[in-house]
Amino acid sequence: MDRATLVAALTNVATRLRLESVKSTSEAGSGHPTSCCSAADLVAAAFFSEMRFDPMDPGHPGADRFVLSKGHAAPLLYAAWAEAGAFDRLELLKLRELGSDLEGHPTPRLPFVDVATGSLGQGLCAAVGCALNARRIGSDYRTYCLVGDGESAEGSIWEAAEVAAVERLDNLCGLTDVNGLGQSRATMWGVDLEAFASRWRAFGWHALTIDGHDLSAILEALAEARTIKGRPTMIVASTVKGKGVPFAEGKDNWHGKPFKKGEELERALAALEAQFVSGGHGVNLAAHIPKPVARPADPPAPRAVAPPTYTIGELVATREAYGTALAKLGSADERVVALDADVKNSTFSERFEQAHPARFYQNFIAEQVMLGSAMGMAARGAIAFPSTFACFLTRAADFIRMAAISGVNVKMAGSHAGVSIGEDGPSQMALEDLAMCRAQPNITVLYPCDAVSAERLVALAAYHPGPVYIRTSRPKTEVIYANHETFAIGGLKVLRQSAQDLVTVVAAGVTVFEALEAHRELLEAGTPIRVIDLYSVQPLDRAGLVAAGHATGGRIITVEDHYAAGGIGDAVAEAVGDAGIRVHRLAVREIPRSGKPSELLERFGISTRSIVAAVKRQLSLR
Amino acid sequence: MDRATLVAALTNVATRLRLESVKSTSEAGSGHPTSCCSAADLVAAAFFSEMRFDPMDPGHPGADRFVLSKGHAAPLLYAAWAEAGAFDRLELLKLRELGSDLEGHPTPRLPFVDVATGSLGQGLCAAVGCALNARRIGSDYRTYCLVGDGESAEGSIWEAAEVAAVERLDNLCGLTDVNGLGQSRATMWGVDLEAFASRWRAFGWHALTIDGHDLSAILEALAEARTIKGRPTMIVASTVKGKGVPFAEGKDNWHGKPFKKGEELERALAALEAQFVSGGHGVNLAAHIPKPVARPADPPAPRAVAPPTYTIGELVATREAYGTALAKLGSADERVVALDADVKNSTFSERFEQAHPARFYQNFIAEQVMLGSAMGMAARGAIAFPSTFACFLTRAADFIRMAAISGVNVKMAGSHAGVSIGEDGPSQMALEDLAMCRAQPNITVLYPCDAVSAERLVALAAYHPGPVYIRTSRPKTEVIYANHETFAIGGLKVLRQSAQDLVTVVAAGVTVFEALEAHRELLEAGTPIRVIDLYSVQPLDRAGLVAAGHATGGRIITVEDHYAAGGIGDAVAEAVGDAGIRVHRLAVREIPRSGKPSELLERFGISTRSIVAAVKRQLSLR
Repeated sequence: MDRATLVAALTNVATRLRLESVKSTSEAGSGHPTSCCSAADLVAAAFFSEMRFDPMDPGHPGADRFVLSKGHAAPLLYAAWAEAGAFDRLELLKLRELGSDLEGHPTPRLPFVDVATGSLGQGLCAAVGCALNARRIGSDYRTYCLVGDGESAEGSIWEAAEVAAVERLDNLCGLTDVNGLGQSRATMWGVDLEAFASRWRAFGWHALTIDGHDLSAILEALAEARTIKGRPTMIVASTVKGKGVPFAEGKDNWHGKPFKKGEELERALAALEAQFVSGGHGVNLAAHIPKPVARPADPPAPRAVAPPTYTIGELVATREAYGTALAKLGSADERVVALDADVKNSTFSERFEQAHPARFYQNFIAEQVMLGSAMGMAARGAIAFPSTFACFLTRAADFIRMAAISGVNVKMAGSHAGVSIGEDGPSQMALEDLAMCRAQPNITVLYPCDAVSAERLVALAAYHPGPVYIRTSRPKTEVIYANHETFAIGGLKVLRQSAQDLVTVVAAGVTVFEALEAHRELLEAGTPIRVIDLYSVQPLDRAGLVAAGHATGGRIITVEDHYAAGGIGDAVAEAVGDAGIRVHRLAVREIPRSGKPSELLERFGISTRSIVAAVKRQLSLR
Repeated sequence: MDRATLVAALTNVATRLRLESVKSTSEAGSGHPTSCCSAADLVAAAFFSEMRFDPMDPGHPGADRFVLSKGHAAPLLYAAWAEAGAFDRLELLKLRELGSDLEGHPTPRLPFVDVATGSLGQGLCAAVGCALNARRIGSDYRTYCLVGDGESAEGSIWEAAEVAAVERLDNLCGLTDVNGLGQSRATMWGVDLEAFASRWRAFGWHALTIDGHDLSAILEALAEARTIKGRPTMIVASTVKGKGVPFAEGKDNWHGKPFKKGEELERALAALEAQFVSGGHGVNLAAHIPKPVARPADPPAPRAVAPPTYTIGELVATREAYGTALAKLGSADERVVALDADVKNSTFSERFEQAHPARFYQNFIAEQVMLGSAMGMAARGAIAFPSTFACFLTRAADFIRMAAISGVNVKMAGSHAGVSIGEDGPSQMALEDLAMCRAQPNITVLYPCDAVSAERLVALAAYHPGPVYIRTSRPKTEVIYANHETFAIGGLKVLRQSAQDLVTVVAAGVTVFEALEAHRELLEAGTPIRVIDLYSVQPLDRAGLVAAGHATGGRIITVEDHYAAGGIGDAVAEAVGDAGIRVHRLAVREIPRSGKPSELLERFGISTRSIVAAVKRQLSLR
């Protein structure tokens, strides 16, 4: 096909994408048609003259990826896939209906969406993961990412920029849609393309500036990007918001507003219809989309993970066992990757790096791109373990939220949980991480207390579908489980029990040891208690908790190195509430401070002494 | 004092700061002495030849600010304040002890710390707020911020960079301590000063590169920064980690490790002692620190906030009432400022901007700097209202965590809570924001259901000390309270009650209206229920809930447009648990999707019908 015909055909595709975006949002009565119109030429060129993919098999492991970082342009994305033949374009008119997977912002309910977008600044991070994944599986697929100009203010964009440059991701090509208008006003850069390009260049990318409505220029830019080696490319494209609908073009106050059905919509459609060009008639670009050629080899079938090899009573931090487990898991399964944010020597993920350097990804001190990249890799088949201090996972809380929406296989590990880290003080203590992860209904939350359970839970996490959070601790703790002990997601362990138990104490992590000591002291005083290790915090073993509660007079005390709200106490209380069992919660109830770990457990009411006192209060003993 | 004497004296100050940092961390047995040593010359020059402040009155409103963004260099900061005379240097040896406010990372327990740091990448955002505050109060004080090279990978640093440039903050001067080493390895840029400078320049800053151990060069750079108009300055300084302790200088694996007491420490101290120079002896630079001259005028005393002016039954979204309330509050109190992240027309904070443009701060799509800047302004006397979609506050979750640790007066408002936003889909729905904010023990959480309560709660939030979160909703809801109705932090409203009530339904926000409709339907069917509007979620009125629960057979049903974990159900359950009252929770229990608001309330089990069904189940009715 000659260039003139191609450009004419792409012009008509872009016009159709605009028409569909306008129609579907008007039909829905909400959405962002003008944000679609600005990017229609960029998307038309990428989908119908650049990318290699099979519309009927969008998940093909060798297919190019397209990540819509500006997720509010979802109708444009949907229109492009319909135009490619992935589904009937009549479906587009069901946009945003409860019964349709064509949601307001893209989610992986759709087979051609890798990760949910719509929280701005995240898509490029996921695209970094997609691009890294190509290397991981030995594929030459390329990853394209449409970035909004407004969202370029998000710091996560620049985290992605740094990591992509460090990783020399020349298989990654971004397109920034510089329409100059945010939601409520002009962006801070307006249409100053050099303001964007100079930033990308300073961050180590190849950057070029083009007219984003000049299809020839777009094609040339995409071609140039393919020739750039050793660094990613950002195509900075000047566009007009609402392009193609004259009365909305470049106007403020048209963000997130569909055209009103009736005269307003008809005017918009008529203007767009008039933009079809004759040179492109009769050319079916969808039929020319190059299919991915190479299907990368499947990874070898996973082998059994090597079992733990500890001695009962040995002192090992769960964070250290996490590192050991991760390295073993990596040996058993090539899909396992680990991501760090410059704390590998504290989380012990360095053990994975030592064993499997090619599958270890350093994100430096940038937790958002670590999570986003993990999401991108997980969406493409990896089992991704991003880890850092648990408190710094909070930095990526919005990514965790979107990982839950995406349901991807990210296995997050947070170390240094709670006041038991001691002297570093509150900024380094995770006391809300359980609340953060439990809030998401589909995140599995695991919390080992010893090295054996830590190793076993890491392996369970790897093969449990969807996002998982593993909480580890800084202090060395005693190994209490035999190496052959088995664990289950949704399980618990009753560590101490007798027919005479008067109260059940539910603990996890470091507080298990406080509870065991409380058990010893109370038993000596003639007050037997039951002790449970709630290593699976979400889901949890309701039946087991209820049975223990009923066996101990309907009395449960929870004790956790976490704030009171949203943690283990709340989880247990909801689980047993309907059974008429009362739950008394021991947790950290004020902002803590620096001190020795043991002093802090004492000061903040989660020590052996606090448990003993709570048991006595429950039993009205003195 | 001549330059040679000054430099010699500063050399000795820097040596003392190194000595104190080394001694105090060795005494504590933990900490980051090498991270202090690299920045000692920068800090010595800033504190003892550049800044204007009164060591005995660090909070003076006209005093220059120093924000330690690399919070792990806390011992250096403490040593500088001790050197300045703020407290006895013997206190330094209590570093990290439970009884000392000299914590592992700085917190505002110390009078000279504006905001807690130690979660990297946040200090510069707070410094932006401090610099903006100077303008707000009409002071010429300057703000200095010591940034780590490693933390420059955090996206929040670049959010701060953008906002500082847009705001033309020439009263802000950053110093980047480029020691080249992160925690676990070299940083991604090593000691390539131009890699930093080119980024800062691309982001609109004046940047210069110097040898960070050349005190003359530091003094000249600080002087140059003072001459730069219309943009902030970043001094990019090459340093050596562990500088002054030869056996640790520039070596990996010395991060976060004190020198072992005994021979290792003695060697370090001896090396440092040998670095004192004779030219500086006898010069007391602390005595020469220029005091802040001008004390900015106090703002006028706040006036009463204009009351709401709605009509019962009128339809007004709480987010809209928030905007109205904020504008009124701004008229009553000049300390009130509002911050936006390009959604002012959705959160209605634009009403504040229209009324008080000089106190409205646009952060574009960058929620982290919005929160950080709010923290900086609040630390300097502003009552700061950052607002965005509630789900996008999650982007700043780690800043919210640190705001709680800092206890600052940030009044966060999140709009578009829950599935009731409808068609935009899950990425735009906040369903974990209550869990996020409730987890922090000192964040007050308010959740109005109508316009009157929204206005009243905004005014209450402003004058309630510490961080507050206000949750607003997208849909228009009926005004149910009279304009003169009063509300209290920790209060609730019983909206429907009779002596015959069989169940208490606790609702908040949009679910209040579902509960009121359920009340109507059930009453018709002969099943009276009590309905509570729990507008104050944290703290909450335990006595009121217990009384209602006891009056209705020990049965409470909670219903919330939020996920099940960490929200209203958990809050109520903990409050009434000890009173033997059972709480049944209606909440969103799976990842939602796009649809009409009413369809989604129904689908996810928090509609009138769900409440009616739950009441009937509780009463075993059919």
